[in-house]
Amino acid sequence: METFKFCLEKTTKWGRLGWLETPHGKVRTPVFMPVGTHGAVKVINPKDLEWLGAEMVLSNVYHLYLRPGIDLIVELGGIHRFMGWNKTILTDSGGYQIFSLSKFVKIKDEGVEFRSYIDGSLHFLTPEDVIHMQKAIGVDIAMSLDYCVPYPSNKETVEKAVSVTLNWAKRGKKVWENQGGLFCIVQGGVFLDLRKRCAEELLQIGFDGYAIGGLSVGEEKEKTWEVVEFTCDLLPEDKPRYLMGMGTPQDIIEGVKRGVDIFDCVLPTRFARTGYLFTRCGKMAIKHAKYARDPNPIDSTCECYTCRNFSRAYLRHLFLSRELLAYYLNTIHNLHFYFTLIRKIRQALEMEDMKELESYFINMEEEEREGF
Amino acid sequence: METFKFCLEKTTKWGRLGWLETPHGKVRTPVFMPVGTHGAVKVINPKDLEWLGAEMVLSNVYHLYLRPGIDLIVELGGIHRFMGWNKTILTDSGGYQIFSLSKFVKIKDEGVEFRSYIDGSLHFLTPEDVIHMQKAIGVDIAMSLDYCVPYPSNKETVEKAVSVTLNWAKRGKKVWENQGGLFCIVQGGVFLDLRKRCAEELLQIGFDGYAIGGLSVGEEKEKTWEVVEFTCDLLPEDKPRYLMGMGTPQDIIEGVKRGVDIFDCVLPTRFARTGYLFTRCGKMAIKHAKYARDPNPIDSTCECYTCRNFSRAYLRHLFLSRELLAYYLNTIHNLHFYFTLIRKIRQALEMEDMKELESYFINMEEEEREGF
Repeated sequence: METFKFCLEKTTKWGRLGWLETPHGKVRTPVFMPVGTHGAVKVINPKDLEWLGAEMVLSNVYHLYLRPGIDLIVELGGIHRFMGWNKTILTDSGGYQIFSLSKFVKIKDEGVEFRSYIDGSLHFLTPEDVIHMQKAIGVDIAMSLDYCVPYPSNKETVEKAVSVTLNWAKRGKKVWENQGGLFCIVQGGVFLDLRKRCAEELLQIGFDGYAIGGLSVGEEKEKTWEVVEFTCDLLPEDKPRYLMGMGTPQDIIEGVKRGVDIFDCVLPTRFARTGYLFTRCGKMAIKHAKYARDPNPIDSTCECYTCRNFSRAYLRHLFLSRELLAYYLNTIHNLHFYFTLIRKIRQALEMEDMKELESYFINMEEEEREGF
Repeated sequence: METFKFCLEKTTKWGRLGWLETPHGKVRTPVFMPVGTHGAVKVINPKDLEWLGAEMVLSNVYHLYLRPGIDLIVELGGIHRFMGWNKTILTDSGGYQIFSLSKFVKIKDEGVEFRSYIDGSLHFLTPEDVIHMQKAIGVDIAMSLDYCVPYPSNKETVEKAVSVTLNWAKRGKKVWENQGGLFCIVQGGVFLDLRKRCAEELLQIGFDGYAIGGLSVGEEKEKTWEVVEFTCDLLPEDKPRYLMGMGTPQDIIEGVKRGVDIFDCVLPTRFARTGYLFTRCGKMAIKHAKYARDPNPIDSTCECYTCRNFSRAYLRHLFLSRELLAYYLNTIHNLHFYFTLIRKIRQALEMEDMKELESYFINMEEEEREGF
């Protein structure tokens, strides 16, 4: 029985429409995944998440390995049951996190040695371990372990990272069994020839989907999109493409245009907790004094629970009073904004008419575009 | 038109059954009010609160006065609209908070001078101001300004506090108009004769309900109940009685037995945020290592959202990871526990059979009773 399928319904000059089929249901693409790194989307319970329209969430097997531990999740019936989330779950392998969060990391022949960012304890993981763990907790889509280098890095370093990533992808694939899908990650920094080598060799191994990693780490935005476009063009039409960790609303639109199907980003949840709200007119800092007596909702055209019931003045009051309800109401709004954006993108692709989508961001002033 | 009514349905040897009618609906008594000091019940949105069965919440006009300010709430359509809560709201006058939170407080002839605990700014409030503010924001039940002294205080100090409280109650009553109900607060510390004097003089003035304040501030529990019982016996049958700020589950049962109708307490919400969960078998510290691999819900007989969907192991993981979702799920459970307790108490009073209620706390070990 096939447990992972991608069906490309339509390719337009504005992007691709399709769907994923995973052991936990069908997911339309383009899709946005809220981030639940530690086995929970920040602040929001699964019931609200489903009600908001989330179809798929991202977690991280590296974080779950460190806490609460893979054995525990297996013992408790797998990641879906553990989190109380019965729809699709994709886990990142943690390649990015191992290299960015640990103060000590050492690449060895067999795998990677690192110290836990939680307690400094020493750990060693092989690419096979990372696949076994994702299988064990029952994720719908697993990611190969990849080697991320910081930006900027010289070509030799990036080339080495590509070689390691390819080797790890190959080894991971060998131990993968057909439960859900296995995605690999194209690395190569801003070097197009390395991206090409990486993509081509990954294609040779063959995966259920292809992610583009190592972007938006400090390079010029123009360069980012050059790499995304270049890489997407190397990838097969009939496999889903996942642009990792990039997801301002504008990023999503730009990514879709270049043929990306899957997105994740901490922005809607992180911004919510720091008091920034997404609106069609740009980013709103709710603590701003100009909202102190403002009886309007965040966005009068928004139909989320927060906008239907609360004023900017109230949300500002909650945020300044550090009431935890502020983070909840802000997150509800921001995630609703993202899922609405995704629905609008899908509609636009269906109609092959981007006018409505292009007019989606109205009156956005330059300074408010920051973060968009 | 009468906008406040109390109807005593039944008096049993176990307590009283009745209902309040306020501008925002009928409320059965005994009732428990979750605390929304700053205009929001911690972590929980109004939709979930209503779904849990809350009929009435407590806020605090002193806190709202300091932040975001009374004018603002009036401008935004009143406290119900501001908070998005369309059921009954009772506000405490803040007497207790003025004296416990401010580093500088001075009783003057006209009122009380104090510094804000937020920014140290100097404020002066009269008992009339406190009533006007509660009227202005449209609360359903307002409280007279009272003067709370710390425990222990000598009799002379407590006697002075009673005199001030009586004077303030009288002055507040004069400016009250018949919108919702006005309650006064019986003070007098642990001195029964002062409680008697205070209650009798307040009765002479005449209020819609009578609160018992200044208890559970350090005195022996036995003394607390002696004062509650003594004071309740002085109060008229046909007016509601509110025991302020006391509300372990055991307190509520004991209070009901002595004729109390209304309770509030921060415990269910505060405990939730510090990782303590109410169960029929006592208080559970979710961080305890013994729950690390526990697949059971907090309480297998509980029907709350948290217990129906999540294991102790998951809740422990969230709490240790400081995921804000932990506070949400814990609060849902604790408030559900309280509202279930209240429903059970009402059933017991209806049936005049306390057996079921008494067996409600099962197998509770001594050390786990702490906080109950």
